Amino acid sequence: MKDTDHVLTLATINPNLVQMQYAVRGPIVIRSQELEKELKSGMKKKFEQVIKCNIGDCHATGQRPITFLRQVIAICAYPPLLDDPQFPDDAKDRARKILSGCAGKSVGSYSISIGIEQIREDISCYIKQRDGIPSCPTNIFLSNGASEAVKAVLLLLSSCQPGSNRVGVMVPIPQYPLYSATNSEYDAYQINYYLDESKNWSLEVSELERAIKEAKENCKPRALVVINPGNPTGQVLSRQSMEEVIRFVKRHGLVLLADEVYQFNVYDPSSNPWISFKKVLHDMGPEYADSVELASFMSASKGYMGECGFRGGYCELINFNPDVQAQLFKYLSARLCPAVLGQVMIGVICNPPKKGEPSYELFVKERDAVLADLKEKAKLTTETLNALEGVTCNAVQGAMYAFPHIRLPPKAIAAAKEMGVEPDFFYCLALLEEKGICFVPGSGFGQQPGTYHFRTTILPSVPVMRRVMADLADFHKAFLAKYS
Amino acid sequence: MKDTDHVLTLATINPNLVQMQYAVRGPIVIRSQELEKELKSGMKKKFEQVIKCNIGDCHATGQRPITFLRQVIAICAYPPLLDDPQFPDDAKDRARKILSGCAGKSVGSYSISIGIEQIREDISCYIKQRDGIPSCPTNIFLSNGASEAVKAVLLLLSSCQPGSNRVGVMVPIPQYPLYSATNSEYDAYQINYYLDESKNWSLEVSELERAIKEAKENCKPRALVVINPGNPTGQVLSRQSMEEVIRFVKRHGLVLLADEVYQFNVYDPSSNPWISFKKVLHDMGPEYADSVELASFMSASKGYMGECGFRGGYCELINFNPDVQAQLFKYLSARLCPAVLGQVMIGVICNPPKKGEPSYELFVKERDAVLADLKEKAKLTTETLNALEGVTCNAVQGAMYAFPHIRLPPKAIAAAKEMGVEPDFFYCLALLEEKGICFVPGSGFGQQPGTYHFRTTILPSVPVMRRVMADLADFHKAFLAKYS
Repeated sequence: MKDTDHVLTLATINPNLVQMQYAVRGPIVIRSQELEKELKSGMKKKFEQVIKCNIGDCHATGQRPITFLRQVIAICAYPPLLDDPQFPDDAKDRARKILSGCAGKSVGSYSISIGIEQIREDISCYIKQRDGIPSCPTNIFLSNGASEAVKAVLLLLSSCQPGSNRVGVMVPIPQYPLYSATNSEYDAYQINYYLDESKNWSLEVSELERAIKEAKENCKPRALVVINPGNPTGQVLSRQSMEEVIRFVKRHGLVLLADEVYQFNVYDPSSNPWISFKKVLHDMGPEYADSVELASFMSASKGYMGECGFRGGYCELINFNPDVQAQLFKYLSARLCPAVLGQVMIGVICNPPKKGEPSYELFVKERDAVLADLKEKAKLTTETLNALEGVTCNAVQGAMYAFPHIRLPPKAIAAAKEMGVEPDFFYCLALLEEKGICFVPGSGFGQQPGTYHFRTTILPSVPVMRRVMADLADFHKAFLAKYS
Repeated sequence: MKDTDHVLTLATINPNLVQMQYAVRGPIVIRSQELEKELKSGMKKKFEQVIKCNIGDCHATGQRPITFLRQVIAICAYPPLLDDPQFPDDAKDRARKILSGCAGKSVGSYSISIGIEQIREDISCYIKQRDGIPSCPTNIFLSNGASEAVKAVLLLLSSCQPGSNRVGVMVPIPQYPLYSATNSEYDAYQINYYLDESKNWSLEVSELERAIKEAKENCKPRALVVINPGNPTGQVLSRQSMEEVIRFVKRHGLVLLADEVYQFNVYDPSSNPWISFKKVLHDMGPEYADSVELASFMSASKGYMGECGFRGGYCELINFNPDVQAQLFKYLSARLCPAVLGQVMIGVICNPPKKGEPSYELFVKERDAVLADLKEKAKLTTETLNALEGVTCNAVQGAMYAFPHIRLPPKAIAAAKEMGVEPDFFYCLALLEEKGICFVPGSGFGQQPGTYHFRTTILPSVPVMRRVMADLADFHKAFLAKYS
């Protein structure tokens, strides 16, 4: 069939989708999948295995599920297990309570669109306990991962009407590419503000002011996205920085979108403890606490649990106009409901075993082991990266990634340009082909022009991570030698 | 806080969302939830229970899950059950195979964006067996329910670029409101074509021609949606009608979207057996089979399984331009992956126990009991409705709904208009307040101007369905008396 015979061609489909990029699953990752298939089919490579450091996918790199979470899920899915003595009573209690909140007592029924009431209550209790301030379950909606919630809120505040001013969304650079992909999809105007790498990726209000000022000709700024702890940058914001952000959004009439999905992933609470934007907002007093519109996002996919496949997430809305909130919830009703077992997962994460319950000790042991392991790998990764010539990497204070700055020789940059690709893409592709290590080039997240980075997760096991770092050191030395 | 203090108000948010309606969870349903809460709190009503006939939610109305499906899910969620003798070997085999296709052998890891390869292979085998023609797993993508797949394909073919001609999407009237809601969201131009109620909701090509001709001034028609078996109408299309549809889309350069989520719900195969559009397309020979772009949608939520809460679904793409397909798959990658246990659910549905396997007999017994029950209720519903004065209802040949035509007295129509609502909304609201029965007004699905309908599911158990029908008869008589 000739190309012109198709109804849908690259020229007739939605141009926003053609433009959209999502680097975390981009060309490097697609090439890594091909390499895996080639290895499987018996082809010889310079490496025996592809190691995927491209995505925050904990279980894929060997982390084991937390027993209690999976026990509750299994019982909800197959209620005859309520009579099985091998399952502990606290898991059964959670499952019974959740099933009583499901229509027909089945996780196979639809829930209401914003999510099962009992689960939203548990989440609300978690938030209340975390921040020491009230939380209302009617302001919480559940979602298929945090991504769906982020997209829904961005859709609400974006306007596709032709002729009207494009809506501007402020996004940190570097950023998690869900935001740039969604802005492409909705044809929103992305206002980039740069995090200051020289100050451990700090968020400076002067940079926010610069960015919004320059963008005002092109759009109507309406929202500011903050990712804390940072992805891909790994910083944890200070309270002072958060207060400045809040004053900034209030001053400029913006909605604050707080991506707080890594709230459990903080490795050095003594220097910068993680605080929720909701808490900081509250502590700033009624002038801010009663007016700034804030959406906070949380996920089942990260933290110590890493249950990505369940697609559990929630969003808490603060100070939203009730009519607007009703419109958002009406919109959500057309997708019926988030996957119910994903709802169960995020609900149980917010209501884990308590002291005195039979599963408490095992739960704490499993949770703390994962977090201690991540902390060790955060340190190992930063130290190794900083020991490489021409590489500097800020401390991984939180989240699951390191985002080192790599100084590439001019000849390598020229070779990349000749190939028609970004220099950091060129570097990452060579690393993949040589060593089977899959990083994501910094250009997929955004970076200061003329600087180059890559993102690696810190997820593979300590021995694997040591090997990755050793292989990287080898490769890096050879790469510099080749292009010097 | 004054309304003008909000950044987001009804005037500043995305107008497409304000305009969007989704009747299946609309105001009548919201009122039914309030009534349920009032009953729970001890308030006296004229009824003791709200009966929800508004949504195709099988488990909510008492249908029990199919044992085998849930066993596989439970084992996948909690693999220690692989050693549990109470679980049959075929369920364990399925779970083992699926887990081997998950990164890290965990359903907590992300799958590739289009879904786990093993599961797409199982789906592909099912389709091949169903139609007797090849199916390729690389043309199948999994989704959170069929809804997400429908929305993705519509997004692909819609264009939000200001200035360009709006894309036209042909939708049957009455339709399932996912289509109108999505067209509102994407600002696509909806081209309504009417099904012919006088011929058991048949799809007439002359009506398609009328509709597209009238719409061409306002848009660039790009796709035709067909729902077969019909929702809310319950018809099953004849092969001849499907051939005419295929000739029509080829003639006018349209993509065919076949919503085939009710393919297991066919109650009288002797009159109109259900055939897939893919099969009919194939049988029409290469002129059509090799060129018409077809997307076929299937769901875990309907059929005999009714596993709505799992949000399992798939879409098979036929004759799509590979570059376009790659763009769609790139778009899907930004939502990472559909819920993995939803993927498992639709996969196992396509690969149920086979003759000779230990679970086969129980599976067949459970499946056939649900389908026999639905068949009985389909007949009961139609017969009762047709016995009411001023009500006519076509045979429910398939799906899970009846969509009777109700002739309302002029005084009732006047009373509705005075209240500022549609007459069928007025009727359904009165029925809800009087009897606690929740139907959806026909205006939520679309109907010929001046005609009135409602949609009821046929899902409640036979005794409940008998009571619903008796209560409806009572109410209807009193309603006619009141407004005659």
